[in-house]
Amino acid sequence: MSTFHQEAHKLLVIPGPIEVTDEVLYANARPPLAHTGADFIPIFGDCLRMMRDVLYTKEGQPFLVAGSGTLGWDMVASNLIEAGESALVLNTGYFGDSFAECLETYGAKVDVIRAAIGGAVPQAEIEAALKAKKYKLLTFTHVDTSTGVLSDAKMIGDVVRAVSPDTLVILDGVCAVASEEIRFDDWGIDVVVSASQKGLGAPPGLSVVMASQRAISTFQNRKVPVSSYYASWKKWLPVMQAYEKGLPAYFATPPVNLVQAFHTTLTAITKGTPSLEKRLAMHKAASARVKGAMTDMGLELLTLDPYYSANGMSAIKYPAGVKMTDLIPRLVKKNIVVTGGLHKDVKDTYFRIGHMGTTVVNPERGDIDRVISGVKEALGEAGYKGNL
Amino acid sequence: MSTFHQEAHKLLVIPGPIEVTDEVLYANARPPLAHTGADFIPIFGDCLRMMRDVLYTKEGQPFLVAGSGTLGWDMVASNLIEAGESALVLNTGYFGDSFAECLETYGAKVDVIRAAIGGAVPQAEIEAALKAKKYKLLTFTHVDTSTGVLSDAKMIGDVVRAVSPDTLVILDGVCAVASEEIRFDDWGIDVVVSASQKGLGAPPGLSVVMASQRAISTFQNRKVPVSSYYASWKKWLPVMQAYEKGLPAYFATPPVNLVQAFHTTLTAITKGTPSLEKRLAMHKAASARVKGAMTDMGLELLTLDPYYSANGMSAIKYPAGVKMTDLIPRLVKKNIVVTGGLHKDVKDTYFRIGHMGTTVVNPERGDIDRVISGVKEALGEAGYKGNL
Repeated sequence: MSTFHQEAHKLLVIPGPIEVTDEVLYANARPPLAHTGADFIPIFGDCLRMMRDVLYTKEGQPFLVAGSGTLGWDMVASNLIEAGESALVLNTGYFGDSFAECLETYGAKVDVIRAAIGGAVPQAEIEAALKAKKYKLLTFTHVDTSTGVLSDAKMIGDVVRAVSPDTLVILDGVCAVASEEIRFDDWGIDVVVSASQKGLGAPPGLSVVMASQRAISTFQNRKVPVSSYYASWKKWLPVMQAYEKGLPAYFATPPVNLVQAFHTTLTAITKGTPSLEKRLAMHKAASARVKGAMTDMGLELLTLDPYYSANGMSAIKYPAGVKMTDLIPRLVKKNIVVTGGLHKDVKDTYFRIGHMGTTVVNPERGDIDRVISGVKEALGEAGYKGNL
Repeated sequence: MSTFHQEAHKLLVIPGPIEVTDEVLYANARPPLAHTGADFIPIFGDCLRMMRDVLYTKEGQPFLVAGSGTLGWDMVASNLIEAGESALVLNTGYFGDSFAECLETYGAKVDVIRAAIGGAVPQAEIEAALKAKKYKLLTFTHVDTSTGVLSDAKMIGDVVRAVSPDTLVILDGVCAVASEEIRFDDWGIDVVVSASQKGLGAPPGLSVVMASQRAISTFQNRKVPVSSYYASWKKWLPVMQAYEKGLPAYFATPPVNLVQAFHTTLTAITKGTPSLEKRLAMHKAASARVKGAMTDMGLELLTLDPYYSANGMSAIKYPAGVKMTDLIPRLVKKNIVVTGGLHKDVKDTYFRIGHMGTTVVNPERGDIDRVISGVKEALGEAGYKGNL
């Protein structure tokens, strides 16, 4: 195992998929295991238990299912909403639009509070909306990957509990889990939706969901059956409970190799060095370094306020005179992969850098230095006259 | 690359996941690629094209989505059926029950023709049902993994075209694709639903679907919107079309590592040696060998008729006096993993052996010999007095 080294490759610093360690990739290349066999069940059970640790929850019910992060939205929309019920979506970018569309697909009546581009939804607007109408659930994107906006999850939990305590609090944490602090129990979060390929540091292909006991009760007390088959907690809850008890169960085949890779990264995050607390602090420091380097060069961030800026990624505006086609292909030539904008109104005006996982917690790799100096060089080559 | 050898492990001969080659596992351990980047797009596009070759189709529209094989049922049920429309399910085991339940979840009115355990649905019953009522679609399990029954896909296609030509023909090929011949265009199949981890020879985690242009038209002419979000072809069709043209597109993140592993196995299947035709013939020969060895020992197959028996797996009854707990753990001690029964009415009376992929097409591995002699030895140890 210690002899496995991944292939030389371009540095992947988009906001997911991210760079992953040799150990994680090696686990992904283990021989497939029988999904209901004695060798696999404890690995899966461990992953469920370690997900609780990542999210600081004792009572949460984890779900791990083959799929992308998006599948978690279907789980929320098809298990927790019944046709005609209302949902409030706090929109800080592309992924708020999509979550709203997903909820509507399953019959929810959706109201949206849309933040200014690069900003978060103000507390007063959330309070006013919750006072004006009864919502079954509220969703927000903890980090909207399209804008790099970080929502204040604790504040949102507090507001819901104060104003509309029956409303379920749904945190889309695809680009937040393990790169941003999430105190599931303390903050009163009811569902976290995530995926394996961002802060969690594995390849993509695993939908990762944590549900509070209150969310599970809501699902169990539905008046009509769950409106999805593959995303149904009726199917998955007994499977997760069985695996955690060390017993075989089957609904649909889990991605057994990826689960082994996921086990490897979760072990590092929850039991390794640096600790989870230290890892989260390192993400803050790396983010400050990247954002500071960019603004030192005279570039502007898309995010309007440092308090509402993600620690696992940065969205940076192209300076005047530099276009996507000037910057991104030049970085690719330097074997550095960043990505363009995604917010439909401004997508050609900014680029995005991911700084999560091993890129951050293993500074000896030099990834952060490399992306900063790469951007500097590429801007110079593109004729940018700012402070390089 | 040639230096990568997978870890020593127990021989995995269940009906999926299966043994996979070192090359496939190595591809699964490549550094993650950006899902919309120039390095990944052609790999994904190649997979779509090669899936057409595997299924002998020129016109089929492939879909590859992070998920298990089950997700393909949701694609069928949520894209092709509208609430209140009728579906006919040919049931040859566990997976027929599940497909029916999935269709009902999305509002279909389902009629089921249930075969005798170990048998297929007789042609006359299919004809009679199609004459008696108009069905939007008919589903059948090409190989029901719970029983090892192989349905006659060509006959079913012929019957539908003769009796009810507007009915869509849906083939659940999770345990059939690349181990059984499927002539998508010639046999008039409208949808094949499959997954990466059986005959296709990759780890699990990829839902693999092929749709005819007729199925795509049915979806495009729906009266009401698609009733799933994650399984929606409205979301996925433009993504698949873009990737095939070499252009980036995004709905949800594909499992980029698994797609590379899938590319490696599809390349071997469609462009390597032995050819696909030869591979299918080798599955027939391996199946005959396993089934012959079992009946030579005095064991009985669960399948009632060799014509309706899968070539990628065998379901074998325990002989009198031998129980699951006598056989399967003894095989595990010999580092051979087979699995028990799955059909709810008879699950404790039989076991299942998978013989697909590299286990079959690379006879120099000796996998088939090993499982046959392992069963023989284990039965002897268990006190079986038959013809060992």
